[in-house]
Amino acid sequence: MEYDTIFVAARRAGNELALVDAGRLSRTVVKAAALLRENAGKVLAANALDLEAMDADSPMRDRLRLTAERIASIAADMESVAGLPSPQGETIAEWTRPNGMTLRKVRVPFGVVGMICEARPNVTADIFSLSMKTGNACVLKGGSDARRSNEAIAALLREALRSEGIDPAAFTLLPAGHEAAGALLNAVGYVDVVIPRGGAGLIRFVRENARIPVIETGAGIVHTYFDLDGDLTKGRAVVCNAKTRRVSVCNALDCLIVHRERLRDLAELCDPMAAERVTVYADAEAYAALEGRYPACLLRPAAEEHFGTEFLDYKLAVRTVGSLDEALAHIARYSSRHSEAIVTENAGTAREFTRRVDAACVYVNVSTAFTDGGQFGFGAEVGISTQKLHARGPMGLPELTTYKYVISGNGQTREP
Amino acid sequence: MEYDTIFVAARRAGNELALVDAGRLSRTVVKAAALLRENAGKVLAANALDLEAMDADSPMRDRLRLTAERIASIAADMESVAGLPSPQGETIAEWTRPNGMTLRKVRVPFGVVGMICEARPNVTADIFSLSMKTGNACVLKGGSDARRSNEAIAALLREALRSEGIDPAAFTLLPAGHEAAGALLNAVGYVDVVIPRGGAGLIRFVRENARIPVIETGAGIVHTYFDLDGDLTKGRAVVCNAKTRRVSVCNALDCLIVHRERLRDLAELCDPMAAERVTVYADAEAYAALEGRYPACLLRPAAEEHFGTEFLDYKLAVRTVGSLDEALAHIARYSSRHSEAIVTENAGTAREFTRRVDAACVYVNVSTAFTDGGQFGFGAEVGISTQKLHARGPMGLPELTTYKYVISGNGQTREP
Repeated sequence: MEYDTIFVAARRAGNELALVDAGRLSRTVVKAAALLRENAGKVLAANALDLEAMDADSPMRDRLRLTAERIASIAADMESVAGLPSPQGETIAEWTRPNGMTLRKVRVPFGVVGMICEARPNVTADIFSLSMKTGNACVLKGGSDARRSNEAIAALLREALRSEGIDPAAFTLLPAGHEAAGALLNAVGYVDVVIPRGGAGLIRFVRENARIPVIETGAGIVHTYFDLDGDLTKGRAVVCNAKTRRVSVCNALDCLIVHRERLRDLAELCDPMAAERVTVYADAEAYAALEGRYPACLLRPAAEEHFGTEFLDYKLAVRTVGSLDEALAHIARYSSRHSEAIVTENAGTAREFTRRVDAACVYVNVSTAFTDGGQFGFGAEVGISTQKLHARGPMGLPELTTYKYVISGNGQTREP
Repeated sequence: MEYDTIFVAARRAGNELALVDAGRLSRTVVKAAALLRENAGKVLAANALDLEAMDADSPMRDRLRLTAERIASIAADMESVAGLPSPQGETIAEWTRPNGMTLRKVRVPFGVVGMICEARPNVTADIFSLSMKTGNACVLKGGSDARRSNEAIAALLREALRSEGIDPAAFTLLPAGHEAAGALLNAVGYVDVVIPRGGAGLIRFVRENARIPVIETGAGIVHTYFDLDGDLTKGRAVVCNAKTRRVSVCNALDCLIVHRERLRDLAELCDPMAAERVTVYADAEAYAALEGRYPACLLRPAAEEHFGTEFLDYKLAVRTVGSLDEALAHIARYSSRHSEAIVTENAGTAREFTRRVDAACVYVNVSTAFTDGGQFGFGAEVGISTQKLHARGPMGLPELTTYKYVISGNGQTREP
């Protein structure tokens, strides 16, 4: 495989794309959505082959599976992104220095964005619309599990590019496998940033092998703290929703922290989860509070390994604490700094919690399930950054851009 | 050396620092500036020992050398940073979603910033004031050449921290040498970002060894294009200033590109540089235009190696082109995307140039010597980013921060 050729072509396509007007970029995304809708049958057929090849009991099946509804929803998301205001060319700031030169900070595309995904074919279309809309070329390395689905989708996306007279190298699907990932991570000078979307293993692989800038996404070890002053009705709704809305996603709840003086309410708090068959791994105090009041077949004593674990399953750790400080210490120790929540009616406690928790998204009386670009109002999302550089939390259009300074004058020189 | 202990202490200090009010942070910086002024003699003595140990003809001497004036200027810069508005706690954006939950995007410190520097002791004080002002702990790996200077400065900075009741682990100077650099680059979970400041070798070392996020800085392969419609008076001033103001800095000019139809003016354009003893490496056409009109001892034929070189010396490559497109192609090929300039009176050409050049700073009729945080009005600078992620070009206070989302509601859950 001639990766260099691919990257050179992507860079060239990216340079051209940066000069394409915003209207044509939006039309390309709309066209791609239409092609996806018209060819849903082809994509579903490819997806069926991918599903067939996957273990029947793999927890990844949910992420891999496409349905007519999911394709319709993907196409609708693409159209929604196409309709968003374009960040292209925006003047972020403008000022004049005492010597008369003017500075303008202008938003521009990165150029070429690299993505490494696991078995989530919907991401392929998301990434296409977000990178096109922002004027970026994209080089995507999909997961082997989703190979046929991704190829079917990518063929349609490239058809949309051609139909708008845009170099199809602006969207390149690399072959599945580690070799392509390695080449992408070392494309210094060709790819401006790489964004991995997938499990902890993928993130680690990228962190250890990338020589180009990375935005880490994905791993979410998520806590909700039910405070001394928590409202039980809100808590029941928020905790169950965060845990069970979709267990395979990164904003799903992994650990409920409960104030010792609210242990009497713990069974009622956890009760909605019993109906969803959530297994609870409770520390000794919480276990005692739940014993006989939570289905025995779903109640287990917690071991150290259950804290700091991203379950991606119908499992929940429960920890008892004596104070806000203890809750904060537990979160600081085990959190992946993705999404953290408190349930409290005490405004002072809420303020202290939001101030002291170091995470991308800090919630008060809201389910962590909202950590998502669409839910934040971004139209769609590129991923959820768990690092602090460049972008944090859900990433939308502006997060796929950088800026440059344009400085104009009439012969200014610097002394000394 | 117990690096883990150092990083754990830095992380803890960073967590505390994030909660210190802006006034105390500013006072600490002012106090440090005062201590630096009062103890200038100690710092100069340490610097003299460093200079003594360095090769007498090293081009790095200029960067290493401190004088009473430079120390006064460093202290003044620190006070100027202390007086800038604090970005801490700023609400960047705030909105409410249809379900009633409110989102607030709040500026917060990174936590712990890592720096790797070469022989520039002034950077030690700069970094201190910028990281304190933004509420970040800092772990600095200085160059071996500046070891004694850095130790003398760091001792004063930590004294300032102690005097304001701040944990001195908020500013840690690591021992010089590769082992400390390696430990810093692998401090996953403890250091949020590392910023190297130095030559191409250092940058490459960091890029290849870092497992934590990096902001690359420094390497500047800088061009100025003297266009068909360039004004000769502006061109003479801007080109000579960009080349000779200070040759050892990254914004210094490396290559003059001249339009073929202005070769008749080339000698006059280059003339001010002759007085500064700039050696010109000219391509064949430019050589012919300069022969007999530029000092023979300073005129050399250009070889391929002279293009794409960061000279950091009184040397300049000259390339002849037939059009704006050719100039842009040359820049795209050889630029390090740091600072690029055009000299032209043609507004259309200027617009095309600023639109198509992919660089942090694109100048029209202004010397590239202005690529500097202070000159941009940022008060001081952390470095000049040559990558596109997070920060591009001169980095000031906001570039040392990230943000978090605080989401508040009254029990909102997500369906489906």
